[in-house]
Amino acid sequence: MCGISGIYGHPNASELTYLGLYSLQHRGQESAGLVSSDNKKLYSHKGMGLVSSVFNHQSLIALKGKAAIGHVRYSTTGSSLLKNAQPFLANSPYGEIAIAHNGNLVNSKELRDTLQKKGSIFQTTADSEIIIHLMAHSTKKSLSDRLTEALLQIKGAYCLLLITRKKMIAVRDPNGFRPLCLGKLNNSLVVASESCALDIIQAEYIREIEPGEILIIDENGTSSIKPFPKTKPSLCIFEFVYFARPDSKIFGESVYLTRKRLGGKLYRESPVKSDLVIPIPDSGNYAALGFAQKSGINFEYGMIRNHYIGRTFIQPRQEIRNLDVKIKLNPVKELLKGKRITVVEDSIVRGTTARSRIQSLRRAGAKKIDMKVSCPPHRFPCFYGIDFSSKGELIASSHSLEEIRKFIGLNSLSYLSLEGMLAAMPLPKKNFCTACFNGNYPIPVPKKTGKHILEK
Amino acid sequence: MCGISGIYGHPNASELTYLGLYSLQHRGQESAGLVSSDNKKLYSHKGMGLVSSVFNHQSLIALKGKAAIGHVRYSTTGSSLLKNAQPFLANSPYGEIAIAHNGNLVNSKELRDTLQKKGSIFQTTADSEIIIHLMAHSTKKSLSDRLTEALLQIKGAYCLLLITRKKMIAVRDPNGFRPLCLGKLNNSLVVASESCALDIIQAEYIREIEPGEILIIDENGTSSIKPFPKTKPSLCIFEFVYFARPDSKIFGESVYLTRKRLGGKLYRESPVKSDLVIPIPDSGNYAALGFAQKSGINFEYGMIRNHYIGRTFIQPRQEIRNLDVKIKLNPVKELLKGKRITVVEDSIVRGTTARSRIQSLRRAGAKKIDMKVSCPPHRFPCFYGIDFSSKGELIASSHSLEEIRKFIGLNSLSYLSLEGMLAAMPLPKKNFCTACFNGNYPIPVPKKTGKHILEK
Amino acid sequence: MCGISGIYGHPNASELTYLGLYSLQHRGQESAGLVSSDNKKLYSHKGMGLVSSVFNHQSLIALKGKAAIGHVRYSTTGSSLLKNAQPFLANSPYGEIAIAHNGNLVNSKELRDTLQKKGSIFQTTADSEIIIHLMAHSTKKSLSDRLTEALLQIKGAYCLLLITRKKMIAVRDPNGFRPLCLGKLNNSLVVASESCALDIIQAEYIREIEPGEILIIDENGTSSIKPFPKTKPSLCIFEFVYFARPDSKIFGESVYLTRKRLGGKLYRESPVKSDLVIPIPDSGNYAALGFAQKSGINFEYGMIRNHYIGRTFIQPRQEIRNLDVKIKLNPVKELLKGKRITVVEDSIVRGTTARSRIQSLRRAGAKKIDMKVSCPPHRFPCFYGIDFSSKGELIASSHSLEEIRKFIGLNSLSYLSLEGMLAAMPLPKKNFCTACFNGNYPIPVPKKTGKHILEK
Amino acid sequence: MCGISGIYGHPNASELTYLGLYSLQHRGQESAGLVSSDNKKLYSHKGMGLVSSVFNHQSLIALKGKAAIGHVRYSTTGSSLLKNAQPFLANSPYGEIAIAHNGNLVNSKELRDTLQKKGSIFQTTADSEIIIHLMAHSTKKSLSDRLTEALLQIKGAYCLLLITRKKMIAVRDPNGFRPLCLGKLNNSLVVASESCALDIIQAEYIREIEPGEILIIDENGTSSIKPFPKTKPSLCIFEFVYFARPDSKIFGESVYLTRKRLGGKLYRESPVKSDLVIPIPDSGNYAALGFAQKSGINFEYGMIRNHYIGRTFIQPRQEIRNLDVKIKLNPVKELLKGKRITVVEDSIVRGTTARSRIQSLRRAGAKKIDMKVSCPPHRFPCFYGIDFSSKGELIASSHSLEEIRKFIGLNSLSYLSLEGMLAAMPLPKKNFCTACFNGNYPIPVPKKTGKHILEK
Repeated sequence: MCGISGIYGHPNASELTYLGLYSLQHRGQESAGLVSSDNKKLYSHKGMGLVSSVFNHQSLIALKGKAAIGHVRYSTTGSSLLKNAQPFLANSPYGEIAIAHNGNLVNSKELRDTLQKKGSIFQTTADSEIIIHLMAHSTKKSLSDRLTEALLQIKGAYCLLLITRKKMIAVRDPNGFRPLCLGKLNNSLVVASESCALDIIQAEYIREIEPGEILIIDENGTSSIKPFPKTKPSLCIFEFVYFARPDSKIFGESVYLTRKRLGGKLYRESPVKSDLVIPIPDSGNYAALGFAQKSGINFEYGMIRNHYIGRTFIQPRQEIRNLDVKIKLNPVKELLKGKRITVVEDSIVRGTTARSRIQSLRRAGAKKIDMKVSCPPHRFPCFYGIDFSSKGELIASSHSLEEIRKFIGLNSLSYLSLEGMLAAMPLPKKNFCTACFNGNYPIPVPKKTGKHILEK
Repeated sequence: MCGISGIYGHPNASELTYLGLYSLQHRGQESAGLVSSDNKKLYSHKGMGLVSSVFNHQSLIALKGKAAIGHVRYSTTGSSLLKNAQPFLANSPYGEIAIAHNGNLVNSKELRDTLQKKGSIFQTTADSEIIIHLMAHSTKKSLSDRLTEALLQIKGAYCLLLITRKKMIAVRDPNGFRPLCLGKLNNSLVVASESCALDIIQAEYIREIEPGEILIIDENGTSSIKPFPKTKPSLCIFEFVYFARPDSKIFGESVYLTRKRLGGKLYRESPVKSDLVIPIPDSGNYAALGFAQKSGINFEYGMIRNHYIGRTFIQPRQEIRNLDVKIKLNPVKELLKGKRITVVEDSIVRGTTARSRIQSLRRAGAKKIDMKVSCPPHRFPCFYGIDFSSKGELIASSHSLEEIRKFIGLNSLSYLSLEGMLAAMPLPKKNFCTACFNGNYPIPVPKKTGKHILEK
Repeated sequence: MCGISGIYGHPNASELTYLGLYSLQHRGQESAGLVSSDNKKLYSHKGMGLVSSVFNHQSLIALKGKAAIGHVRYSTTGSSLLKNAQPFLANSPYGEIAIAHNGNLVNSKELRDTLQKKGSIFQTTADSEIIIHLMAHSTKKSLSDRLTEALLQIKGAYCLLLITRKKMIAVRDPNGFRPLCLGKLNNSLVVASESCALDIIQAEYIREIEPGEILIIDENGTSSIKPFPKTKPSLCIFEFVYFARPDSKIFGESVYLTRKRLGGKLYRESPVKSDLVIPIPDSGNYAALGFAQKSGINFEYGMIRNHYIGRTFIQPRQEIRNLDVKIKLNPVKELLKGKRITVVEDSIVRGTTARSRIQSLRRAGAKKIDMKVSCPPHRFPCFYGIDFSSKGELIASSHSLEEIRKFIGLNSLSYLSLEGMLAAMPLPKKNFCTACFNGNYPIPVPKKTGKHILEK
Repeated sequence: MCGISGIYGHPNASELTYLGLYSLQHRGQESAGLVSSDNKKLYSHKGMGLVSSVFNHQSLIALKGKAAIGHVRYSTTGSSLLKNAQPFLANSPYGEIAIAHNGNLVNSKELRDTLQKKGSIFQTTADSEIIIHLMAHSTKKSLSDRLTEALLQIKGAYCLLLITRKKMIAVRDPNGFRPLCLGKLNNSLVVASESCALDIIQAEYIREIEPGEILIIDENGTSSIKPFPKTKPSLCIFEFVYFARPDSKIFGESVYLTRKRLGGKLYRESPVKSDLVIPIPDSGNYAALGFAQKSGINFEYGMIRNHYIGRTFIQPRQEIRNLDVKIKLNPVKELLKGKRITVVEDSIVRGTTARSRIQSLRRAGAKKIDMKVSCPPHRFPCFYGIDFSSKGELIASSHSLEEIRKFIGLNSLSYLSLEGMLAAMPLPKKNFCTACFNGNYPIPVPKKTGKHILEK
């Protein structure tokens, strides 16, 4: 997954975009990058790692100008290398241009082959480079025409931010898989994957960039193009379930309230008798709260998170690991001892993490453990930008509910139904992509695709 | 404040102590250090910053041996320099010795003056160096006698861990201000400020080190000395209210359950009509939960914490700061808009942070905000190890309740009473030091003392 | 200036190439890079700074395979950025390819414009990227044919090393401006700018790569192509005078012996009476020795160099600088006091460094100072790879001999004549480019060219 | 070995002392440190590694005040750890004091034992800490009296610089083993191990600090005390032969001219027929020059040094090392081939480096190699500050001249005689310590001493 953020028309453009990226860090922790423009040239800084370690005062000051776009990346396609960090910047025949991409193209291999036959050479394995090449080969006169010509050739999920010396452009694919919103800060315009990136700089939320919209921002103001044929929307439902930040609005709606409704629905579908309800921190917090409020069972913090865990934490050696070191979460024994516990989680992918958490709760003295998952079982890979494991690695694609329950070590296990999940959504159910649950892919995908791994 | 941890008799002593320190990181983030022994000599590694950045594989491997003690520090006395990082290691007349100290001595100036007159030179401004000098000047034959002679000269709060080539020694002062507990991991003995440091390595909790106890651990096992005159205990009540980790047991009792009781008591003392109860994350979480459960008002996560905030985060420039950047906490607007909210916090020191949080909630649309604090107002400085501001900087020492309410911008403000707080404790009220609330100092303090600052 | 080095067919290819680059460090200190091949894919590592700081054990181990090429860079064209570090690596339509370039093209602007019109996008401002683009646009079937087609379009000075999964290719331009030699280490073939890069790994010198030669090395052995029309050679005479290492053989001949002959010739042309001859360390050492031996005047080390000067040395603040800090060279007062001194230098560019050295010698007590320069005055910029200052910055392009003498503060100043310099060469005089001395450019250069600065 | 430098009364004290240390880097590369005073308190910064990497702008700015002392260290006693880096700073009963020491005490063990019995604890294994402890135990009233009392108890070689809030003090032991000179820069006084540290800041040389002199510098000017009984001087002759910089004056005399005389004397004692004379760079340069001038044989640079070798250079793996990589020195083949060569070196310790150099010259084609060493064979360890190998590791202490010649692989080998070396000195021969050559130790040394290693 990835996150993008940009601003046009503010003297502190790079610093504000840095803050935006920082608030989108949950969407990608592998690399971060910024490209700014001062009307004369583009400035770029990228690095591997967290936003806070990639940038410092010096690098932000060097990113001059009143417009900037940024990107945080968790690789979907393209291996984990600095050169694949975005935004991708190039000298095109028409001047410098940079692009940041959230999503995944499904026809990148064909496009790449065709371009290479025309003499294009590639620097990266990222989708964004392909778009720049397509634009460079366009014979259209204007930037927007060249971009449109390029976009009409690509298929898949994409939210894009482009920057040139004079313009910033935001694009959302016709299906609208990923969220992208528009805000304003005084006279500047801000675009970001989620509204939390507006909040951090106190920008005001205006609206979503619409599916199929190309929004061009320059010194004359904004203009929208919608060059794509009408398409049924396919919003990623997993953004609501798991991916987005709870304090964000995505697709125009509150993530927090949606997650609480998922938890409430979950109780309705599979009620249980328990002494207390606890979340798996922190992703299960809001569904757990919804579950607790609907059921009347007390919500408790059953496991405490260590806030100081850092990237540089040394993994213990094997001998020590066998002690089952509780680096991240520690159960509260005095609370759990002898109790019947309902544990709420937002999703189960491989099941190994859940298993280790449940063992930890058992050792802390929990008498009975029922697990409730606030979405249906994941059975199919995502080709639109979420790094799910290939089908073989999703436990639910090859194991029955009972097998999963046993593997994790639970007294009972319940998933929310597809219908229940859709009913808890704040938008009509026809708007959503649910391919990872039922295999209904809104855009056909190539037979053979590379390795896809979900790292939660 | 500081945290200490040690282990005796385990082949991975330094790695396990590192994990212990890591779990005690909340007790001090300024510096961290480890000293180990392989029966032949002591090995030391210290540095400024978080445990995870001070140590790496190489430095842990270099800390050889089956015994180790460690320390995390937030300066009480002694300025913020590497040389003040602990454990303090020295070549004494009787061989190498290292010491780690949690607490604060009240007669350190007198002791230092006397020692210097005898020809001692000082390397640090830390209390722990004084104890080593006192031991070096003792003419007693055995290590435990020299230590006892030294301890009988010092006054104040101290939990100590000492290590020599052959022994590890744990000490708790006669008043027992700070917590210190004993655990075991197979055949090894573990000592730590809080039980969370046992949990992280799956060690089993045995008991508290008693006030006035000197516990000597060597290859022959353990032995206890209690050389001090009988003293009334003065356990630090603020460890329960704020300082310790919620998943820890301190002074033998659960912090989590105590904090929930404080919240429940708070509702009883000052009930309120609200649409929802929210904590100031994360320190107010447990009292808020207790308050919500007792009141029947829904508990909600009103503000979401950014988990990726790191030490290297760049503070925005002044121009940007004026935008009131919400780096750490972002309110959930859709939840708060138009609501009556009860905010629960564990304590107010200067009031500036609370003020900024409340402004943020107002901007998110909260209609009415009542604040409940789970302890009485802080009016007096602590001389036993907690870095409170000097009296002048504690808002409650110079402002009335009404003035504080106005400053923070609340509809109402209520503190828990001293009696209420004591009644919520899991131990008889005579056991506690409550000096920071009522000025009753169990050990007399010098008239003029240095600057004391509480940094939450 | 730049240096290149490569090896084919050795299990320690990257490590040996690293050593080669290390010995060529004098040819470029701005950035360094290596690309290796293990027959399946290419591996790259590049960085700003010295070879010894760009690479470490880990990065060398990651550069797998039995073939490698490397580059050290002092920018001629292309600004000082990591992206301009070489070798330049790209995914071409025919697979991965990397290129390292020593020299400078004179028609790069035209080529770049034409390629952009065809839809090529550029990542760097380096000449080497142009060559890869030209190859990508070729419709020829074989790698050597595509390379030949590209080379026939470029004009200027170039020694190239290319690497693909299966081949390593060395190229020297038809004029042969820059040196490039071939050696062997057991069954491996080594190519390098100077023979010192063979010596450091004990490889045996075989021969120069000839002007206009394309040498292809693969598992079947070597083959040569000479596709260019016959051209008069234009070897850079300044490589002998200043640039190459004294222990190298370039263009098939010894640099050390040539420099000594330049010094001898210098004495013959402008004899002088002195008490001692001293070089400006270290570049003037060998001409000074030749001068001393021919004249019978004692050679002495008049200034001692500080060997510990490092990149990270802090430049003193202005107040201190005014003390004329002698960071690099310190005169030996007891030797110089009251003496008549002949100072031998290899070249004067701006004259400011020479001036400061002479002032330092005066302060040390030298009574009379005559300076001898082992080449003629530099009056014209170089367009073939040496970063001379533009014409305006070369002191001899705008000042008379007498003016320069006065500026530097000498009793007398003599340059070697063009004829004298050519006579001291080990090859016939018609073989050399002397454009920087007399403006006779063997390949026509564009009217308007960018800034060219010589940083000695 | 170590180097010390200090200045009193200059607004840029720390920066100037930094430059002084930088010029003394040849005397110690293991650690560097500075302590400054602004009349109110002392400031300290120390680190492992070269001067240029230990300090940066920030650390120099933090070293406030108009007085500073500094130290570069190559460990003699005390192991290689940061805590042993000097100056050693402590809080004494009489205020802060710091000390920097060049030399080695022979009675440090006894002193340490005695002090520990009195209750002193030790932080380091450095001699300088002992001196501070002795001062702290003195009951005298004035700083100079306490220092004198301390100095009368220590035995061995020592040049000291001390700094307190108000004073800087320089001390040279009664035997005067190590050099220490005084200079001035306008109204500031500078003290340094060698005069090159005065030259770098353009300070004027005044005189040597005399053996047995204590020079006290404060705002009232300077005063000298000579509290020691009259002692015969024992200047270290190896400072002239090898250790000091050639451009320095030590013990009041020129190192450069002395080394040239050693080379001349060497030719007189052991003439030889050769085609050329070459030094082992760079230490043999000056004796080689003296040898060449006296013999009339041409001086040449037979081996060229790579100037870019840095601390971080990666040592090649074993497989590569067997190629006998010539990292540091490369012979000039075209010069050496078929020639009879005289190689001049300043000393031979273990013989292994010399052996490898000679093999390298043989491979380059030298026909006959005679080696001349500009001092007698080293047979005895030094206890006064030079890190010679213990007796067992000095090749000449266990091998005959003929055995050494064979081991190194020479046609002939000649050492300068003791009488010849003394005759080449600029001072009467009775003034020198020659213990490392003949075992005549001017101060008795303990029977059993630790490991002593000479690392050239």
